[in-house]
Amino acid sequence: MTNPTAAMIVIGDEILSGRTRDANMFHLAGQLTNHGIALTEVRVVSDDRDAIVAAINETRPKYDHIFTSGGIGPTHDDITADCVAAAFGVGIDVREDAKTVLATNYENGAADLTPARLRMARIPDGATLIDNAISKAPGFTIENVHVMAGVPNIFATMLEWLLPQLAKGADMISATVRVDLPESTIAGPLGIIAKNFPQLSVGSYPFYEENAYGANLVVRGIDADAVVAAEQAIKDAFDL
Amino acid sequence: MTNPTAAMIVIGDEILSGRTRDANMFHLAGQLTNHGIALTEVRVVSDDRDAIVAAINETRPKYDHIFTSGGIGPTHDDITADCVAAAFGVGIDVREDAKTVLATNYENGAADLTPARLRMARIPDGATLIDNAISKAPGFTIENVHVMAGVPNIFATMLEWLLPQLAKGADMISATVRVDLPESTIAGPLGIIAKNFPQLSVGSYPFYEENAYGANLVVRGIDADAVVAAEQAIKDAFDL
Repeated sequence: MTNPTAAMIVIGDEILSGRTRDANMFHLAGQLTNHGIALTEVRVVSDDRDAIVAAINETRPKYDHIFTSGGIGPTHDDITADCVAAAFGVGIDVREDAKTVLATNYENGAADLTPARLRMARIPDGATLIDNAISKAPGFTIENVHVMAGVPNIFATMLEWLLPQLAKGADMISATVRVDLPESTIAGPLGIIAKNFPQLSVGSYPFYEENAYGANLVVRGIDADAVVAAEQAIKDAFDL
Repeated sequence: MTNPTAAMIVIGDEILSGRTRDANMFHLAGQLTNHGIALTEVRVVSDDRDAIVAAINETRPKYDHIFTSGGIGPTHDDITADCVAAAFGVGIDVREDAKTVLATNYENGAADLTPARLRMARIPDGATLIDNAISKAPGFTIENVHVMAGVPNIFATMLEWLLPQLAKGADMISATVRVDLPESTIAGPLGIIAKNFPQLSVGSYPFYEENAYGANLVVRGIDADAVVAAEQAIKDAFDL
């Protein structure tokens, strides 16, 4: 069996300028792995209409799910919802269901929905809403594209609501063995082990700490017995 | 004038699986901003030949520079150099200049270059070497593609050597104003300021801390006077 696949599109100049260190990609990657969905590609694009539309339309035919983060707030630079509508060639307007949800965030309900706030109730035609337990302004899903906020705790709460509704893949099992040898010494034996376990992904992630080389060797796959056997093969190969 | 543009390609399953939080993207973004080069797109791809070749060939015609990180070590999963050669349609083999540099890392010089170590001296035809002050194994530049290591301190040392050789763009000036109001209150006045300063990028980066909303408003551009004026306009608009 093959697990579902996903791509992520991170939208925001603040990541590309180096002002902010991305947190949502790291969070999503871990959550998807736990859910048996293989995150296969990430793109970070600027707050630019053409770039966002292209990223959505180039990725959505290739993966089971596309997750976006960023650009769904009320300010002038929040253009993600419009870009998603453009990518799908559908209309976008303030929608009653989104307005109702959004109104619950304000003391006087709908009476407090200023034009700026109403921007957050603009939803592309045909989309369903994603719950936002923190600030109410919803995300949305249209076909296989899940559109979520960029603020990390809001991204996380939206994902927590969404993920249980998506088909789970088989559990990915992994084992990590730290080997305090340079990768050039590890390479030969590890290459043979990788060939012997074609059903697993076998990776070597080198580090350089305190003037010494080493690598974390990671075996991953859905065949738990094979993971255990490959882990043992690595330990045997390096006398661990 | 327009500053040079760049894209980054991060190569590695460990980022996509959530095992490792990316550090090189954040580092590169900050360094390029300081050098007046606009990082405009980032792609994270898996250790997959087709994915790596496609990412290189789709981005290199669009940007002045492409920076890659990861996949140039000696193990079986290090396939970046071969993928770059394939993307450019050129040959790849162990090269004498790379071998000479690499040999300086070992006690007995070239006599210590085992087949696994020699893999790190395989360089696509026509590429020039990038210096690696830490572990010697070189990166390389071919046309506008700069291929560097994934280990963060080695990535950083390669970039430190490379960046001064690339044409510098105009300094990007930025100012940040923290406003402790919800974005929906900020949106109206900020939209007007963004329109009044078309030569700047005006961004709103919301946060939610201790049960209160706020946003960092960031103005960026190469026109220092305009940045100062826009910063003041923001302070005036929100009585700061």
